[in-house]
Amino acid sequence: MIWRSLFKTFSKRTFLDYASTTPVDPRVFSAMQPFFTDSFWNPGSLYKEGVLIRQVVEEARKKIAQILNVTASEVFFTGSGTESDNMAIRGVFEKAKEDGLVKPHIVTTAFEHPALIEVCKKIEKLGGEVTYLYPDSQGLIHSQDVVNALKENTVLVSVMYAHNEIGVVQSIKEISREVKKWKEDRKSLYPYVHTDASQAPNYFSVSVDKFGIDLLTLDAGKIYGPKGIGLLVVKRKVKISPIISGGGQEAGLRSGTENVPSIVGFAKALEIAGVLREKETERVKGLSQYFLKLLSKEIPQAELNGHKEKRLPNNINICIPDLDSEFAVLKLDALGIACAHVTTCKSAGDDSASYAITALGKKECAKSSLRFTLGRGTVQKDIDRAVEALKKILTI
Amino acid sequence: MIWRSLFKTFSKRTFLDYASTTPVDPRVFSAMQPFFTDSFWNPGSLYKEGVLIRQVVEEARKKIAQILNVTASEVFFTGSGTESDNMAIRGVFEKAKEDGLVKPHIVTTAFEHPALIEVCKKIEKLGGEVTYLYPDSQGLIHSQDVVNALKENTVLVSVMYAHNEIGVVQSIKEISREVKKWKEDRKSLYPYVHTDASQAPNYFSVSVDKFGIDLLTLDAGKIYGPKGIGLLVVKRKVKISPIISGGGQEAGLRSGTENVPSIVGFAKALEIAGVLREKETERVKGLSQYFLKLLSKEIPQAELNGHKEKRLPNNINICIPDLDSEFAVLKLDALGIACAHVTTCKSAGDDSASYAITALGKKECAKSSLRFTLGRGTVQKDIDRAVEALKKILTI
Repeated sequence: MIWRSLFKTFSKRTFLDYASTTPVDPRVFSAMQPFFTDSFWNPGSLYKEGVLIRQVVEEARKKIAQILNVTASEVFFTGSGTESDNMAIRGVFEKAKEDGLVKPHIVTTAFEHPALIEVCKKIEKLGGEVTYLYPDSQGLIHSQDVVNALKENTVLVSVMYAHNEIGVVQSIKEISREVKKWKEDRKSLYPYVHTDASQAPNYFSVSVDKFGIDLLTLDAGKIYGPKGIGLLVVKRKVKISPIISGGGQEAGLRSGTENVPSIVGFAKALEIAGVLREKETERVKGLSQYFLKLLSKEIPQAELNGHKEKRLPNNINICIPDLDSEFAVLKLDALGIACAHVTTCKSAGDDSASYAITALGKKECAKSSLRFTLGRGTVQKDIDRAVEALKKILTI
Repeated sequence: MIWRSLFKTFSKRTFLDYASTTPVDPRVFSAMQPFFTDSFWNPGSLYKEGVLIRQVVEEARKKIAQILNVTASEVFFTGSGTESDNMAIRGVFEKAKEDGLVKPHIVTTAFEHPALIEVCKKIEKLGGEVTYLYPDSQGLIHSQDVVNALKENTVLVSVMYAHNEIGVVQSIKEISREVKKWKEDRKSLYPYVHTDASQAPNYFSVSVDKFGIDLLTLDAGKIYGPKGIGLLVVKRKVKISPIISGGGQEAGLRSGTENVPSIVGFAKALEIAGVLREKETERVKGLSQYFLKLLSKEIPQAELNGHKEKRLPNNINICIPDLDSEFAVLKLDALGIACAHVTTCKSAGDDSASYAITALGKKECAKSSLRFTLGRGTVQKDIDRAVEALKKILTI
């Protein structure tokens, strides 16, 4: 196969797309390994092997629950962050409909991840109602806007914690506090608050308890864990229906034989993220500051998209006037730099324009922005290379 | 961790539960390995690494398509066989509703896998209609019964190809031929025919083309591939909606970053299953015959459930009058034998009784049956041990 030899040439390239996906940490891989060919049993089996492998799964769940500040029975494994988002939105919507609510209403934002946007579009087709809030020009969602959007039939508020594309971090704690007040005034069960925090755990502590939220999405593939596994935290009191039914695994909320190696890997990845968090945040923040300083010197027309402080420390999303960003990604690629222009996950519509940046009111930047996301493998030389290459393609 | 040392003691045990799950073949694991920590990229990325990893995914898809006799664009990867079943049923149902059909009707059987049964129950809640057909006492579904159940609003027929619990293999070709005739007489687009063939590929060639079906479910975890990955074949003309929306992966039918290692592993597992099929079928058939002969000599009251010939060669599901099967599984476990009484995936209701065996009209056997499923690691000594242990627990 051709690609085997081609992949080898990549060692000299600069990868600055860690928000798209991360390599599996070797320690995560080691933790997973015993559960492929050796300890392969089904956690649903009655006999000893099944009981022990169930214990392995529950140990992993418990570890994750401790990190997220919830109880183990509130952690549900899924096939991806995308599935978790779908499960949160559709699950709450369908349960509300089953319970007799005629037109359940969901409040979200216009620049959510496509997993959220697309399932919300689906909800509209299925007889639901959705309000898409716009952020301010810095990418921040104001809690007052959220509260203003609430209605008697609102069942769910979903706002991404750390934005996958522009890196802005929302005051999810404040949003959920204001929603809670609104609920308490009305003695209402609804709305719940959900957040997709998939991009966060490498740099921020994710505590469901502190956030005061009801539902949380995470994805192992963004935190140096395996692809193909996500989780949804569902607080005990939340009324939700499964979107995948069957053998009754995950307490009946998400059926299908448990993906044991990936569950173990997810727990390990989250644990490592916590251990490295402080140091890695410091390090990556330093690199980002260096990146921005170099940019302001070499490419002064480049402007950071989104809030300058309230952001993921590894995310540099810049607008360069008149740049054709899709073409720029390809030209940078030719010079050995791997980065992104819009999120890898595309939403319907014009694929080359960023709807997230459009939502900031910077339409002129929607096709002229580049996203560089740093990670554990990034060193200063990578930044130098990236800026050098960027300068080159701008002067050609 | 305690389990590390405990697992080691399992080498002396006899595992006869291959229908529940299979170990990952070492060759499959080797094929997957490069895509965890090294070639970890996102197939949706524009740059070289993304393009090449996309090629890896599409190579795997093509390989699988060739084996299943479909085109690559008809193969959609999911998170499990359960998800594939849900996607087939809900996807066709919801699309029909979106297209204006008031009460879409589904024909299935009363002894399908819980993934089917439970999603069908869901469909009934969501305003659909379901007919559950009963097999004959041998576990066979008659194509005439299927045709008799068809109505103007029938959108889908779903009958499992090789039964996970009792091992009976259905004439899916005949069923789909009769359904097709019915459709052609009415010049109707509906109903489609779906089959879950997850248990089949180790012993039967699975050709969508020969079967004449529209939708097919497979699961890698049952064919010595990784857990947490399934596929759904969707023939080009089938009208279906996604149940997981988002970034538009899998041609928009199943969003979420592609699980590259598992996709590669799935293709390898299916390839190996094909290579080993003939020899392994012969070998396992021999072992099963030996098993039955030994049973008839040592435990003559044991009776095989389901058709004697039309069955998976690795499945020995027996009824032993007055046996408490759940207790028997635990007693056999204590004697070193791992087997099952009902499917690992439970359906609602009385967990200790088999609804599949009840569906055969053998209610007296529903709590008195044991399932032994053989696999690549099974040797004659395992059968000797199993029968010896079974004899022991019956005489205690």
